[in-house]
Amino acid sequence: MSGAAGRHSTSQRRPTRDPRDLVAIKRDGGSLAAEDVRALVDGFMAGDVSAELAAAFLMAAYVRGLDAAETAALADAFVASGETIELPGVDRPIVDKHSTGGVADGVTLVFVPLAASLGLAVAKLSGRGLGYTGGTLDKLESIPGLRTDLSPDEFRRQVADLGCAVAGQGPGIVPADGAMYALRDATATVASISLVAASVMAKKLAIASDLVLLDVKAGTGAFMKDADAATALATLCVEIGRARGRRTRAVVSDMSQPLGRAIGNALDVAEAVDVLRGAPGRLRALAVELVAEATSAAGGLARDAARRRAERVIDDGTALERFRELVAAQGGDPSVVDDPASVLPAAPVVHHVASEAGGILVEVDAEGLGRASGALGAGRARRGDRIDPAVGIVLRPEIGDDIAAGDEVAVVHARTANDAKAAARAIGSALTLGEGPGRRPPLLLARFE
Amino acid sequence: MSGAAGRHSTSQRRPTRDPRDLVAIKRDGGSLAAEDVRALVDGFMAGDVSAELAAAFLMAAYVRGLDAAETAALADAFVASGETIELPGVDRPIVDKHSTGGVADGVTLVFVPLAASLGLAVAKLSGRGLGYTGGTLDKLESIPGLRTDLSPDEFRRQVADLGCAVAGQGPGIVPADGAMYALRDATATVASISLVAASVMAKKLAIASDLVLLDVKAGTGAFMKDADAATALATLCVEIGRARGRRTRAVVSDMSQPLGRAIGNALDVAEAVDVLRGAPGRLRALAVELVAEATSAAGGLARDAARRRAERVIDDGTALERFRELVAAQGGDPSVVDDPASVLPAAPVVHHVASEAGGILVEVDAEGLGRASGALGAGRARRGDRIDPAVGIVLRPEIGDDIAAGDEVAVVHARTANDAKAAARAIGSALTLGEGPGRRPPLLLARFE
Repeated sequence: MSGAAGRHSTSQRRPTRDPRDLVAIKRDGGSLAAEDVRALVDGFMAGDVSAELAAAFLMAAYVRGLDAAETAALADAFVASGETIELPGVDRPIVDKHSTGGVADGVTLVFVPLAASLGLAVAKLSGRGLGYTGGTLDKLESIPGLRTDLSPDEFRRQVADLGCAVAGQGPGIVPADGAMYALRDATATVASISLVAASVMAKKLAIASDLVLLDVKAGTGAFMKDADAATALATLCVEIGRARGRRTRAVVSDMSQPLGRAIGNALDVAEAVDVLRGAPGRLRALAVELVAEATSAAGGLARDAARRRAERVIDDGTALERFRELVAAQGGDPSVVDDPASVLPAAPVVHHVASEAGGILVEVDAEGLGRASGALGAGRARRGDRIDPAVGIVLRPEIGDDIAAGDEVAVVHARTANDAKAAARAIGSALTLGEGPGRRPPLLLARFE
Repeated sequence: MSGAAGRHSTSQRRPTRDPRDLVAIKRDGGSLAAEDVRALVDGFMAGDVSAELAAAFLMAAYVRGLDAAETAALADAFVASGETIELPGVDRPIVDKHSTGGVADGVTLVFVPLAASLGLAVAKLSGRGLGYTGGTLDKLESIPGLRTDLSPDEFRRQVADLGCAVAGQGPGIVPADGAMYALRDATATVASISLVAASVMAKKLAIASDLVLLDVKAGTGAFMKDADAATALATLCVEIGRARGRRTRAVVSDMSQPLGRAIGNALDVAEAVDVLRGAPGRLRALAVELVAEATSAAGGLARDAARRRAERVIDDGTALERFRELVAAQGGDPSVVDDPASVLPAAPVVHHVASEAGGILVEVDAEGLGRASGALGAGRARRGDRIDPAVGIVLRPEIGDDIAAGDEVAVVHARTANDAKAAARAIGSALTLGEGPGRRPPLLLARFE
């Protein structure tokens, strides 16, 4: 019984550790302490927090958001759930480039040999793509013979020797992130800025690097449909990196249309080879920007000079040769850089799609194109699905282009004629023609460090 | 490809029925169509919607809220998941009274015989209490011999013959509500106004009645901690009842302190008998108000006249006799109405708690008292736990009372001396003394029809 001195709090119970009480804090818009976030993640992995309660937490986090400290704590908990990777013996600055993913986003295939050509080391661990199109691993594996299941030793040695390696992440790294991702996928909680940031940064913090460079996509073909959301994700990731002592830079790049022209797997490799052989376009431009960002941050070069050097090592063939060495080092057929068509798997049906009308291309439903490519077999609906490396779509025009009726707008690479026709219809509804003047969206929307 | 006439929507895909898309609508603050709500509930019961996704839906519904149409659709889906109960052969107006529950809320024990004494039929199906203290069934079952597992036929016949029956709800009624409640309990999504309203109204709509009368509790001892939340729940329930053609009235009553003095099970029965024998207090006052509300709504009587008639059937012993008949009809020892102490189970330890200080009782942590009673064994932490009918707390003062140091503030009925001491400590911290003048909270906060 409290004394006569007046009101005072009656809550002198000891804090309970019922995980539902922690979820209730987030549900009501409060902030969780780092140890509480850790308790939820560890409890989920240990089976003490049910999948149902974890799902409720994810939805609460999705709707209420996590602040930077909570997000960093979630990333820490993911890192602590598994192994971390050190890279001793690498004497160049190690850059870990990560894209948040989008349609026709083959930039890693160009970035890796380009950065390695400029004195950086790129140690790239990728997860499997889950979505309309394959991930970097899937694209690379369309090259006959190429392995991405490098052992930790192989991976380290290749980074030290060649300056670059691309391998599968393996189940020992951030396993809690993988488990939480599967739960997010099952519960409509994937596209949360906080949850994406924790997932991205956990993967980065679990492996040694001197610079984390994030390419955050914004637009119809990305998780983040608008620049504001992408900016929020980019700044959150940079903040987490800084809080954890990891140099981190981020750019927000446009995904209001596919980045490259190829939306598939082997088709993306062929396009990357084209770019490394000098083909112009948005894919090359972004790869150059990212490499300039990395060399200016990690190598101390001014960004303009860095950009010129990147252009040069493409134009003089250095980057292409580095790609050849990368492919060869991982067991792939290196002649893919000379004649992709003769090496890469080809689809039996090649269907040219012409425009029925004329006008300026004013809008592209990049996600719709991604779905169409996925329907052809280029993606996986479920973890473990097999990807068809040969199929996909090559899109011709960009936003702002003037199209005449009858112009070819896409080439569909399909298993069957019926598949091709369905893709052609989807392509038709994904492209919106209007009246001019055509406005081309800028490629780079923002830059954060 | 769209024509040159200008922009138009590219989303001409057929609507998918991926349940995650439905959950995403609620996640983003949108409204679900009735068929979508039904699809989620039916899918959950059929196993097509995972418990994790259902948990995410519940959290989204908790944080975003459901509008009246969605809430009614959820109630409909619960009703459709099981049996419904008709009550042919009952010639009186059937009243279904429901309390949202709180600490020392034994009003049903008084209401049922009182309403039956005034020409109404009360067909009361109750769930098992899950929480600090037992539910109505648990309280009644502390009377030796009394059964609540009436068959549907027994239940109907007793309502027709006696005007009242109290039985367990049984698993065939609104099974989806039961399954969803278990999931809410596991996922920190219990105390949502929308979800509570759907759950309450589903149980009411599944059984025939001429009037649904809801007693929505507001305060430290109730789900709804403040009058605004309770008002929102009351109006939502009334709106759903109206939309489904069921006459529904609701009152919001105060739970800033325990309603009665007894917080247990047998102790509540003893208190109900006291009230039916003429004892004054908040429990009697609320029972009279509720019966007046019911007879005015269902019987066409003016509320003042109805209130006077209710007082009269208490004072002349009619209601007590009706309670005796109810107990006897359900197999219980009817002499409980003559001498509760000789019939009801008694706890071995009876501990009197005195106030250490003096002052005006300004605040009561009713939930804390409920927890203390639960810790004595009067409630169940998990479905299926056994309740100890004998234990509990009898609280002496009400908010506004002037207490002197040394005054008895409670009597603890416990299994062991240690249990009693812990309860005494909890009682001490649940009562806050301050300076006068003492203000007594009004019993009835609002009324909706």
